[in-house]
Amino acid sequence: MQLGMIGLGRMGGNIVRRLMKNGHTAVVYDKDAKAVASLAGEGATGADTLEDFVAKLEKPRTAWVMLPAGKITEATIEALAKLMQPGDVIIDGGNTFWQDDVRRGAALKAKGIHYLDVGTSGGVWGIERGYCMMIGGDKTVVDQLDPIFKTLAPGVGDIPRTSGREGRDPRVEQGYIHAGPSGAGHFVKMIHNGIEYGLMQAYAEGFDILKNANIDALPPEHRFEFDMADIAEVWRRGSVIPSWLLDLTASALAENQTLDTYSGFVEDSGEGRWTVNAAIDEAVPAEVLTAALYARFRSRKDHTFAEKILSAMRAGFGGHKEPPKKPTLKA
Amino acid sequence: MQLGMIGLGRMGGNIVRRLMKNGHTAVVYDKDAKAVASLAGEGATGADTLEDFVAKLEKPRTAWVMLPAGKITEATIEALAKLMQPGDVIIDGGNTFWQDDVRRGAALKAKGIHYLDVGTSGGVWGIERGYCMMIGGDKTVVDQLDPIFKTLAPGVGDIPRTSGREGRDPRVEQGYIHAGPSGAGHFVKMIHNGIEYGLMQAYAEGFDILKNANIDALPPEHRFEFDMADIAEVWRRGSVIPSWLLDLTASALAENQTLDTYSGFVEDSGEGRWTVNAAIDEAVPAEVLTAALYARFRSRKDHTFAEKILSAMRAGFGGHKEPPKKPTLKA
Amino acid sequence: MQLGMIGLGRMGGNIVRRLMKNGHTAVVYDKDAKAVASLAGEGATGADTLEDFVAKLEKPRTAWVMLPAGKITEATIEALAKLMQPGDVIIDGGNTFWQDDVRRGAALKAKGIHYLDVGTSGGVWGIERGYCMMIGGDKTVVDQLDPIFKTLAPGVGDIPRTSGREGRDPRVEQGYIHAGPSGAGHFVKMIHNGIEYGLMQAYAEGFDILKNANIDALPPEHRFEFDMADIAEVWRRGSVIPSWLLDLTASALAENQTLDTYSGFVEDSGEGRWTVNAAIDEAVPAEVLTAALYARFRSRKDHTFAEKILSAMRAGFGGHKEPPKKPTLKA
Amino acid sequence: MQLGMIGLGRMGGNIVRRLMKNGHTAVVYDKDAKAVASLAGEGATGADTLEDFVAKLEKPRTAWVMLPAGKITEATIEALAKLMQPGDVIIDGGNTFWQDDVRRGAALKAKGIHYLDVGTSGGVWGIERGYCMMIGGDKTVVDQLDPIFKTLAPGVGDIPRTSGREGRDPRVEQGYIHAGPSGAGHFVKMIHNGIEYGLMQAYAEGFDILKNANIDALPPEHRFEFDMADIAEVWRRGSVIPSWLLDLTASALAENQTLDTYSGFVEDSGEGRWTVNAAIDEAVPAEVLTAALYARFRSRKDHTFAEKILSAMRAGFGGHKEPPKKPTLKA
Repeated sequence: MQLGMIGLGRMGGNIVRRLMKNGHTAVVYDKDAKAVASLAGEGATGADTLEDFVAKLEKPRTAWVMLPAGKITEATIEALAKLMQPGDVIIDGGNTFWQDDVRRGAALKAKGIHYLDVGTSGGVWGIERGYCMMIGGDKTVVDQLDPIFKTLAPGVGDIPRTSGREGRDPRVEQGYIHAGPSGAGHFVKMIHNGIEYGLMQAYAEGFDILKNANIDALPPEHRFEFDMADIAEVWRRGSVIPSWLLDLTASALAENQTLDTYSGFVEDSGEGRWTVNAAIDEAVPAEVLTAALYARFRSRKDHTFAEKILSAMRAGFGGHKEPPKKPTLKA
Repeated sequence: MQLGMIGLGRMGGNIVRRLMKNGHTAVVYDKDAKAVASLAGEGATGADTLEDFVAKLEKPRTAWVMLPAGKITEATIEALAKLMQPGDVIIDGGNTFWQDDVRRGAALKAKGIHYLDVGTSGGVWGIERGYCMMIGGDKTVVDQLDPIFKTLAPGVGDIPRTSGREGRDPRVEQGYIHAGPSGAGHFVKMIHNGIEYGLMQAYAEGFDILKNANIDALPPEHRFEFDMADIAEVWRRGSVIPSWLLDLTASALAENQTLDTYSGFVEDSGEGRWTVNAAIDEAVPAEVLTAALYARFRSRKDHTFAEKILSAMRAGFGGHKEPPKKPTLKA
Repeated sequence: MQLGMIGLGRMGGNIVRRLMKNGHTAVVYDKDAKAVASLAGEGATGADTLEDFVAKLEKPRTAWVMLPAGKITEATIEALAKLMQPGDVIIDGGNTFWQDDVRRGAALKAKGIHYLDVGTSGGVWGIERGYCMMIGGDKTVVDQLDPIFKTLAPGVGDIPRTSGREGRDPRVEQGYIHAGPSGAGHFVKMIHNGIEYGLMQAYAEGFDILKNANIDALPPEHRFEFDMADIAEVWRRGSVIPSWLLDLTASALAENQTLDTYSGFVEDSGEGRWTVNAAIDEAVPAEVLTAALYARFRSRKDHTFAEKILSAMRAGFGGHKEPPKKPTLKA
Repeated sequence: MQLGMIGLGRMGGNIVRRLMKNGHTAVVYDKDAKAVASLAGEGATGADTLEDFVAKLEKPRTAWVMLPAGKITEATIEALAKLMQPGDVIIDGGNTFWQDDVRRGAALKAKGIHYLDVGTSGGVWGIERGYCMMIGGDKTVVDQLDPIFKTLAPGVGDIPRTSGREGRDPRVEQGYIHAGPSGAGHFVKMIHNGIEYGLMQAYAEGFDILKNANIDALPPEHRFEFDMADIAEVWRRGSVIPSWLLDLTASALAENQTLDTYSGFVEDSGEGRWTVNAAIDEAVPAEVLTAALYARFRSRKDHTFAEKILSAMRAGFGGHKEPPKKPTLKA
């Protein structure tokens, strides 16, 4: 099957490669002509402009947009929509805010153009591991593009099947799902990332407590020097907490268990924030997912204004003079 | 190798079975004579009393105590210590507070008796999956009992090896670790459980937001009806968040995705609490692990006194009359 | 000075009364004719319709809209704007989302109509205590209406002056502030309410711990029976934590320290939610304000779906059967 | 009445001064002879040694110990107890862990010595404002020392009385309370400090959101430049959130609203930690009090090990390289 791909970064490029390796064809476009040339060299059909890209696609066309930022994605899809015809399909595979999908899906439908929002997980490992895809949009369109999704998905692999799934959509255990109408795909992907933040923070806090188990403030008989790398490893088998994230942690710690090459400055992307916004809209208490987000906010600051307010109050009622900050704990 | 086991519940009984299936022998004792008889019928040597149990063990004796509660474990180990001799080994495989191990290890050492604290993870699945064991105590004693631990551990299995572990203790990737001196084993197990609470809560909140994505308070175009079972399943392959806990969630949801057979009353055990206590002693911020613990506390109450204080204040400043409670969200 | 008031509920009615008691005049309108008649009986000029209301106002007109819900306020201001003329002033004194003010202020400015957003605090006590007002909009309009705001504000009263305020806007210590352009007033009011939630929850948790200090799970020598009413009272003088909210708590507890007439079902309004949204937009960690909001969400549910997910996982890995919920703590 | 005071720091010295100013007499002792000489110059009877101190007290003796750290307090009380006689009273007015009071009260009672634990709030302002005292121990001893407590307490002052307190202990509204048996005083003081942390953090977060309302990441039309000093001031009158802590904040901001003389390194003392420990022992969810404590822990670190774990995981699954940390927000 033929797929058009706009955006040949780490994700878009590898998606094309995984498709071509499995017998599909691709038309590719990127602002960066080198990226186009590179994939053309691997067998894809390169396009010089968006017009050229659309012209080279077989009808009904399928164009997958895989771009990083909100505004570029929006502008590209708008431009694309003007060039496309009723029956064509636009896929947004990026990290788009699901409410934008709802709006966009309706606007495109009015023009007869199909729209799928595909939350795509897999990162740098996706090319070999496959991509977990959470898809929103019309079922008939999802079905029509099934060969693409099936190829990109990881498949059952050697992960044990879940019993009790007889009679359920068999695509799901292949690693892709039609989650609902427009927006549903990115909504589920958003929650996936929100959970990811929470899981990461849970492990991170646990290792932090292990790391600081040897501080001077503790009584000598209650201090331990733990081997972070070995503890991460031992939990990978037979415990309650094995996970892919733990595997990655064990690898990083095996390489250098001080982690001193990492700054500890932690970025966050929209999904973590939108997850909390969604929780608030639904009045669902989401303490853990929110705390995980806030830990990242805090990691990017030297000091908060809040902390200075605390110091000012303490000086006010107790005459406390806070010492200049110096790290008191292992990090 | 011979092992004595005191406490033949779900954990103790299955540990003995896994050992016997692999060529080891066992002397077993429990207050419940039926439990002793049952394991004796499977090949173990039953004991009628603690004295009988000690008498039937070959020297140097190794007695594994696998009892639920703090006081019973304490009393049993005290009684056992009086019957044992220098060079014998007492293992506490239960969920003991690590500071008790520190105290106990020192007290037994003064009598020449060896003490190992073995945090044992695996639950009802351990008999087939193997047990992840986190061991505290003297290295020579751990080495001496290696045949036991090796048998109980899961082994490498089909879980990929972590690169960069060359030159490290090979036992670790079998699923058991000598974590440090007395107390270190239960400390690491405690953190394991603390992390477990955090991971569980992260998934739980994510599914809660998915579940409530269809509430009336949302604008109609922003409502979704998600299939909980399919979403749990799809994340098992190719996403960033696969884990054993997700596997279990997917199984439970495949069976009945309303989960209406569960009350939502969630117990907690000491480890989650002690993890937070340890974080506080070390001045490590552990927001996520703590929030996960508090969510369980809250789940066991109809209303908190705190909430009534809030209502009373609201009546005081705003004349607000709170309606009687009724569930406003899916649960 | 003359003020028009639309919305004669608890807040709007009392604002009119406080103004009239201090020599101002008022034209009043409400959908409920009885409310209009009642205030007309106290000296206000009643209006039958919005048209009548506008007609009875002297030019340049000043109309204060004090309505509860977002949609009614929006519709009323739209209707009002059509009836008013350049130079007239519309005040939104309700609990409007500040981004709506930004939009509305710009739209009205295009028509030559002035718009002020006035976050108004004071609740049922405002008529005697005065109202704390946080005002957004053009400074010249705020200055022009100063007689109104000055009358509504509490004034310095017997609250000690803050030193170091020489040269600063003297209106501020009277209890009203021109906080910035359109939206600034409701933004500051929003943060006020966000803080209010946090303060309330802090007291509430403290009393909860005091209340539960006598539970059976504690060792007998560590149990206390505290008098909630007396403790709230003692902190009112000489401690670090006196506040108006503590005064209200002490009153409520003096009346009935069990608080058993309160359900513990706690409502939240938009401000608490928008505060968290603002924190997220700014990447400010706001743990306490968020936790306070979530505690209210949780108070309104019997059980969360999250808790059932936890129970399902626990059954999965440990075979745990959770007991049916029953309150284990004082509430 | 005569009181002996051991420990003449900021708190102990001022307590003696407030007593002497109101007709009481004092015997004073401190390791620092200068502190003793200084108070002797103000009318107190100085003592050179603990023996001398005890000798100079009239029987039955009353010795108030006001020392900072746990170990010094413990050692001093032990030494004192050896020198005192049945019927004498030892008061611990410091920030002692309440479980130590329980133990100590019982041990001293066995010797016939009375023990009171007095949680004393008031800080540097206590000498003029009076001290809020939360007292644990035998009622008869508390009654016997009433003249001392009455003098130290703030009295009703100009703070309005709470209605509905007829028939209740009138001492409470003077600012002191007999909270219960040994330990109860410090328990209530502990909760007072726990609440204090929560209140402080609530204000701090609110001001942080106000401060960062002008960051570049926000759309231009949604940015505000707020005056921190004026906002703190305006809330002092007529709003829902006036408090003594807000008064102090308004003062600090009036002086320098950037707070750039404060480091933002925030200390915590035992009470905040013990409050959380107590919440956990009682299974009371105390999200806000705990989050406030953790914010202080975090303020004292450059980076946590947890954050480095997050960065390592992100590098693992997404190839993300985190930039070196630089403050992205106002602080």
